[in-house]
Amino acid sequence: MSLKALSSKDAAALDKDLMETGGFSLDQLMELAGLSVSQAVYRIHPPSKGKNILVICGPGNNGGDGLVAARHLHHYGYTPSIYYPKQGKNELYQRLTTQLKNLSIPFITDLPEAIKSSHLLVDAIFGFSFGGPLRDPFPEIIGQIESATIPVLSVDAPSSWDIESGPPKEGPGAKFMPEALISLTAPKPCVKFYRGRHFVGGRFLTRGIAEKYGLDVPDYQGVDQVLEVGVDAEGRL
Amino acid sequence: MSLKALSSKDAAALDKDLMETGGFSLDQLMELAGLSVSQAVYRIHPPSKGKNILVICGPGNNGGDGLVAARHLHHYGYTPSIYYPKQGKNELYQRLTTQLKNLSIPFITDLPEAIKSSHLLVDAIFGFSFGGPLRDPFPEIIGQIESATIPVLSVDAPSSWDIESGPPKEGPGAKFMPEALISLTAPKPCVKFYRGRHFVGGRFLTRGIAEKYGLDVPDYQGVDQVLEVGVDAEGRL
Repeated sequence: MSLKALSSKDAAALDKDLMETGGFSLDQLMELAGLSVSQAVYRIHPPSKGKNILVICGPGNNGGDGLVAARHLHHYGYTPSIYYPKQGKNELYQRLTTQLKNLSIPFITDLPEAIKSSHLLVDAIFGFSFGGPLRDPFPEIIGQIESATIPVLSVDAPSSWDIESGPPKEGPGAKFMPEALISLTAPKPCVKFYRGRHFVGGRFLTRGIAEKYGLDVPDYQGVDQVLEVGVDAEGRL
Repeated sequence: MSLKALSSKDAAALDKDLMETGGFSLDQLMELAGLSVSQAVYRIHPPSKGKNILVICGPGNNGGDGLVAARHLHHYGYTPSIYYPKQGKNELYQRLTTQLKNLSIPFITDLPEAIKSSHLLVDAIFGFSFGGPLRDPFPEIIGQIESATIPVLSVDAPSSWDIESGPPKEGPGAKFMPEALISLTAPKPCVKFYRGRHFVGGRFLTRGIAEKYGLDVPDYQGVDQVLEVGVDAEGRL
């Protein structure tokens, strides 16, 4: 199947449309986005393959999606941990954090140690609004993710990648190619540099908004909140 | 499996706990509750059996769950309609209504006509906070649902039933026995008068809150947001 890509600027405008004229709250959208992420984890790595999922969350909405996903993963029977080195000040992120703490989900501080004991890593550090360059402490964190031997699922974009032009030419992230990627609402242009399993999630796109931005409504099946989409040899979706 | 029931008073206190100390917003809880309702519809009546789902929404949170469910049903490929005779003033209900209008989901006014052309009816009129008696226009609406020949799924409780003592002795609702019921978070005491397919939904119950209220965390499977539970001949769960 073919899915058109959404630029960083259009992705921001689309979210604004969903909230200003669409009647959605950020709570709602983030709940559905994080739920999609959790279902992608389940697809690529069911609990029978290992329950320790490390979710690395960035300071913005991508990190919020990771926090929501971790809660759902707990309910699916995983034992998630969170690494959240720069916690967003937003009241919503604080509430999502409270939800996790009430489930006794640990917020870890020793990243190398946590990677060693995890079976899968969720990269929820930066999403479509990432403009680079990486600021401390993220160059080191990306380096550690890049050299990890466990599979990685990136949320919306591999963190450190430019949303248009893909992986950085050098430094942390230059060789980062996660095993799986979940694009939220629609793929971002950098997906053309991506090779691996690719999912789309965020089942709230209306036909009206899809038309406005020249997007396709993904062909989700049944009650699924996530759809696996292919990438061909030329990187076309 | 056995699931303990939650009184009306405890259900209200539990919701308050989820929001005050649990960090949840009503937006989030209603999104997950409505998603569960939509998955129960899909279980009992997949789109291949007929796509016209009439969702009757009451003025409170039970109606809000119905509005959320209708949006998900649209995304699953159904053609839902809404009957919403007394719209709640709450800003959240207005936003949920906007979301449906942006999907061109019709808000109907002729209930008998809509019942005739529908394949399944979702009763999202009253939930655990219903204290009776029915006030206009609901006696007539309940009468129409009661005499409908299409299957009905009730959300949290069959509307018109007392949450503790079950169906009214006489008048509208006295003979109301929906084909399916979805209890949110936990069954309510009136479930002991219920005979039919029974689901539980709302996959956000923490172990801490479950213990506080003497509840069981339902044994949801995989990424499901809904679980079918049995009712034995004595009405025990």
